[in-house]
Formats: sequence, C-alpha cells, structure tokens
Amino acid sequence: MGKIAVLYDSLSGNTQKMAELVAEGARRLEGMEVRVVSISEADAAEVARKADGIALGSPCNLGVMSWRLKRFWDEQMEPYWMSLDGKIGCAFSSAGAWGGGSEITCQALNTILMNFGFLTFGLTDYVSKTASAHYGAIAVREPRDEEVKESCRKLGERLAEWVGAYIDRNPGLHPLVREPGRKRPGA
Amino acid sequence: MGKIAVLYDSLSGNTQKMAELVAEGARRLEGMEVRVVSISEADAAEVARKADGIALGSPCNLGVMSWRLKRFWDEQMEPYWMSLDGKIGCAFSSAGAWGGGSEITCQALNTILMNFGFLTFGLTDYVSKTASAHYGAIAVREPRDEEVKESCRKLGERLAEWVGAYIDRNPGLHPLVREPGRKRPGA
Amino acid sequence: MGKIAVLYDSLSGNTQKMAELVAEGARRLEGMEVRVVSISEADAAEVARKADGIALGSPCNLGVMSWRLKRFWDEQMEPYWMSLDGKIGCAFSSAGAWGGGSEITCQALNTILMNFGFLTFGLTDYVSKTASAHYGAIAVREPRDEEVKESCRKLGERLAEWVGAYIDRNPGLHPLVREPGRKRPGA
Amino acid sequence: MGKIAVLYDSLSGNTQKMAELVAEGARRLEGMEVRVVSISEADAAEVARKADGIALGSPCNLGVMSWRLKRFWDEQMEPYWMSLDGKIGCAFSSAGAWGGGSEITCQALNTILMNFGFLTFGLTDYVSKTASAHYGAIAVREPRDEEVKESCRKLGERLAEWVGAYIDRNPGLHPLVREPGRKRPGA
Repeated sequence: MGKIAVLYDSLSGNTQKMAELVAEGARRLEGMEVRVVSISEADAAEVARKADGIALGSPCNLGVMSWRLKRFWDEQMEPYWMSLDGKIGCAFSSAGAWGGGSEITCQALNTILMNFGFLTFGLTDYVSKTASAHYGAIAVREPRDEEVKESCRKLGERLAEWVGAYIDRNPGLHPLVREPGRKRPGA
Repeated sequence: MGKIAVLYDSLSGNTQKMAELVAEGARRLEGMEVRVVSISEADAAEVARKADGIALGSPCNLGVMSWRLKRFWDEQMEPYWMSLDGKIGCAFSSAGAWGGGSEITCQALNTILMNFGFLTFGLTDYVSKTASAHYGAIAVREPRDEEVKESCRKLGERLAEWVGAYIDRNPGLHPLVREPGRKRPGA
Repeated sequence: MGKIAVLYDSLSGNTQKMAELVAEGARRLEGMEVRVVSISEADAAEVARKADGIALGSPCNLGVMSWRLKRFWDEQMEPYWMSLDGKIGCAFSSAGAWGGGSEITCQALNTILMNFGFLTFGLTDYVSKTASAHYGAIAVREPRDEEVKESCRKLGERLAEWVGAYIDRNPGLHPLVREPGRKRPGA
Repeated sequence: MGKIAVLYDSLSGNTQKMAELVAEGARRLEGMEVRVVSISEADAAEVARKADGIALGSPCNLGVMSWRLKRFWDEQMEPYWMSLDGKIGCAFSSAGAWGGGSEITCQALNTILMNFGFLTFGLTDYVSKTASAHYGAIAVREPRDEEVKESCRKLGERLAEWVGAYIDRNPGLHPLVREPGRKRPGA
C-alpha cells in the first residue's frame, strides 16, 4: 500500500499539531502507511525518500518557511534530487495571524516540492463556509477551531487519495469516485 | 497634500466594502485627498494616474485577481507605463474562505504595481492577536469582524503615512515618528 | 490512451509557437491524443474538460497572465469546477525579456490549475547548461534558441509521461523508468 | 547622504559578483555611501539596520533563497523587526539556468523585506532588448553578459535614486526627473 510522510518543522508545536491532523486524515484510507516525522529526526530524509506522497509543513516565518526546513531540503534531501520525480506533495503552515503569510509559505513549500519533481496539489473543496485549503492547509497558531482541524485532515485524506489512485493504481480511491456527491458551496 | 486612490473591482460588494475601510484609514491623516474609485468608473485610469499612492483591491478569483481588474491594467493603464515610477502601492483582497488565496492575490496585485514602478509595502503591525496585513489586507467575504475592518483601515493609514513622509516630504508622518510606542505583539 | 490539451492565449504568436513545441514533445509518446487549442476557439473549454492533462500557456503581461486567459477560466471553465480534480497540469509563458516575469506568470497559471484540483508539476531536468523549466517553460518573445525550444518540448513530454503513468496507469511511462540514465548536470 | 547596503549570501561567488555590480550602480549617484556586505560578516546585521536602502541577494536554491540567508533574517535581523519600517528594498538572485527560479527567489526576498516594513520595488526599464529586472535582477550563474551586468547596476542605481528622492528628500534624484527622456522599448 501507499506510503505517506507528513514531514514538518515546528518550534512552538503549532505546526506539529497540524502535522498530526494531516496524518489523521491520511489514515482515513485503509491500508495507508502514514508516518509523521520532524525534520530533526535522524531518519527524516530516509522516510521522505521512501514515501509515495509527502505533506510538507512549516511555520510561516517572515512569509517563508523556517530556515531549518530549508536547510533540510538543501542539505539532507539534495542527494536525492533527480530520483524522486513523480511523488505527490502538498503543504501546510501555521502563521501568527490571518494575513501573516501562511498561504505564501505554502506556495514556497510547493515550489520546493515542484523543484524535486513532485506533483503538487491543493483542495478544491471548502471544508466549511469559511475554511478551505486551496493551496495548502493554513492555521493561525495552534489549530483549535474544528474547521481548521478538518482542513488539515482533509488535506491528508486527499494526499492519500492521490497516492492510492495514481501511485498504487487503485482508481476507486480517486476523490471523484469516492465522493460522487461532492457539492459546490451553496449548491 | 498627498493624493490617495483606493482602486478596486468588486462583483459582490465585498471588496468594495474593504475599499471604503481602506479609504477611511487613509483619511485619518489630515489633508490627504482620498478617492475611492471602481475600475468601472469612466475616470478610474485618470484618478490612478494622478494619485501619489494607490491601494489596489480585487476579489480573489482562482487565487488571482479578477479578469476585469487585469484588463484594466493591461488596457487602460498601459499607456502610462514608464511614467508612474515612484508611486506607492499596496493591495487588498476578499476571498471566499481563509486559505482561499487572498494572500496570493495580494502578491499578484503587488506584482502589477511593481511592474509599473511602484514601491509596494505591507503592514508590519499586528492589528489584533489574530489579524495582520503583512502583504496586504485580506478578508473572508464581507469585512465584518472589527479586526478585519481595522486591518483595512490600518493599511490605508499606512499608505497615507508613506505618501506623506516620502512624496509630500513631511518626515513627521513617518510611522516610526507618529507612533513611537509601537510594540511587538507580546512585548 | 491519454488526452493532452495544450491550451493557450497568444496575441503576438510567441506563446502559440511555444504551444506547438509543447505539443510536439507530448507526441513523443506514442498513442497520446494531443490537441493544441487557443482559448478563443469555440470548443476550448470542452477540449480542456475532456483532457487528462493540460499544459496552460499565456503571455506574461505585467507579471501575470493575460486578462483573456483569466476570463476564460473565470467564465468558461468555472462551471466545471469541482469536477476536474486529479487532472495533471503545467505551465508555459513568453515574456518580453529575461527577468520580465515569465516564471511568476507560470506560478500564477499553476495557481489556477491547483485551484481546479489539478496536480501541477515542473521539470527537474536541465534541458541544457543554461535552460530549465523547473516551474514551467519560459521564453523571451518567440522561442528561437534550440534550448528554449527543447524546454517546451520536454515539458510536453513530461506531461504525457505523467498522464500515461498515472491516469492511463502505464507504469512504464514514468520518467524514472523511461530514462533510467537521467543525470544531474555536471554528474 | 543616503546609506545603501548590498547584502548577500553567496557560495559559488556568483551572487557576490552580482552584489558588486549592484553596488557599482548605486555609486553612480554622487555622495551615496554604499557598502557591500556578506551575511557571514560580523557586522552584517548592523550594516543592514543602519542602511536607508537594502539590495538583498541570494543564490536561487530550489526556487527559494539559501537557508543561510533565511537564518540571517530569522535570527540576526529579527530583533530589529518593527523598527526598520520605511526602508527601501530590492532583490537579486543567480540561478543555475533561465527558468530555474531566480524570479521566484526575488519574490521571496521581497516578501521578507515587505514583512520588515520595507517599500520594495523593481525596474520598469528594459536594460536591453532581452533583459529586464522587473521584480529584481537575475542572472544565470556568474553575471557575464553586459546586459545582465547592466541590469544589476541599474537596480543599484534605482535603489540609490529612491533613497535619495524619498529618504534624503532630494526630489532631483527621482528617476522621472533624472531621466526625463526614458523611453518605452520600441518607442
């Protein structure tokens, strides 16, 4: 079955809490092997290398990822460049405030994944009337509100769906097949 | 005195409400001439051309500005390219949800302004514990919460401060002079 | 077999020439059904809707896509939102100069595709010592240099590879399988 | 007179060469105090703090700045946040190839500057028929071609112009005053 890595850096613990929710969502698909791993763990690069899909999370620091997360990709992942093409990736970020740069950080995280040849995605679905994760899941500080929590879970679930449908070649896991009644907001 | 244009496109009226709040903030500085103008008004390009500072607002549609706002710059503003350098600019956007792309839309709006030679800025200040406008002011749908409203006003106020300090050459309007007691959150 | 749409807007013809090269690259994979279509053609939205993969191209106007291309997605594609998830997408753009915003335009094009639920990608490979298409293929005006032309073709080829490997479920088309000797520059 | 800091990180020496060219351009305005400083120098943060304008340069690593440059802002500059508002900033970056992410890196550098309250800008002017620095100056590896070199110099010159016109309050240094005959390409 598919392997999912939820790879994150966290200083305050907020992004770590998002990571756990993303993993919770990925586990909604039976049989997925889901691992939550901090970049400070010794085998983080190895876990990332072996994963079929990666959800990459960082605190939003100055509208960009943390320097530690960047160093991890520059140094520990760099040897694997040109050998990871075709993995599936997505992003999540916690900022100090709405408007604080979490979306822009997700975009920068997706840029790194794209540079490594990943296929990157966001969610079309609205999780609630006021929460979405179109370019990655975002939170202000710790994810507390149920809608923010669910946007993290839903991101992980979608990652598992793409890994299942495309890498494990199980078309029944495609979200348009799994959730045929998906509706547009207001529809 | 300085001339401020709050230039926007709005279909639902949400971005228009943000525009009015941005203008309200700009008027906090006495003597500023502030004009709120929709791109659909006949003299919008003329108002923009004459302004010293522009706050540019758009609905977030697909994570980018509305096509109407883009057409306005491509067609109506294009003749003025190379003659507007040095104006001061900032951005605001309303999206359907948090995480829906409003920050990324502000970044695209700033890109247009930068292409025209504007000096673009965001707010350092947090407006409240959970609201900032680091790269432009953002709202979900209509700006209803006081902190969202104040982030719009504060953006307009800052625009007026930069126009006053730099274009009108009134150093007393520099925010570090006007608000010497500005504090970091938590400080 | 897989269906590829190379969907573009072009005023000067430069982006159209890129589109033809992207299609040429996609046709390197036998059996792919490749269609080059301008957004001004009557059936453009229908072609896009039916495609498994879309390469989306726009002139770089003010560091963002053309307003016509944006209108196409806002109006003609909008009814299909929430029903296109899982298609594969990539971007290309011609600008007036290096440094003129073509990369940033590709990023905005990818943002639209991501909003529609596409999995978006760039090339890891360097096409030559000085050309890559890490976030989409870029050109200055008309694609004339062989390395620029090849970066367009290679983007189309990769799109066909992902469509073949993931949507047609033909693992032999995965680039790491097709090109096992891929090397890092300088390696 | 105005103080300009050209602040950079460089591993290969390519970005350093760009920095020297940016400084050369800034020195075209008489009386500007221009300092080129690597982030690894002991007084880099102090030089940045005292500058009126900063040109910020980084290698493009994975489409984002180097982790060292990010760490510098996260750690050494962080104590000055909320006290640097109103400085003027711009960006430059060297990548391995055209299309390799240098524009996107400049955008991320501008994001950091904007977070710190800087007014950020790019060049409207084309330096030659095929080179511009609309969102920052970019180079492939070492800046060798005259047009790439001149785009670096022109960026520095413009930074000095804005510092002179807006912070030193010398309206004669405004580029529209200094270069009244500026023409559009092809005009």
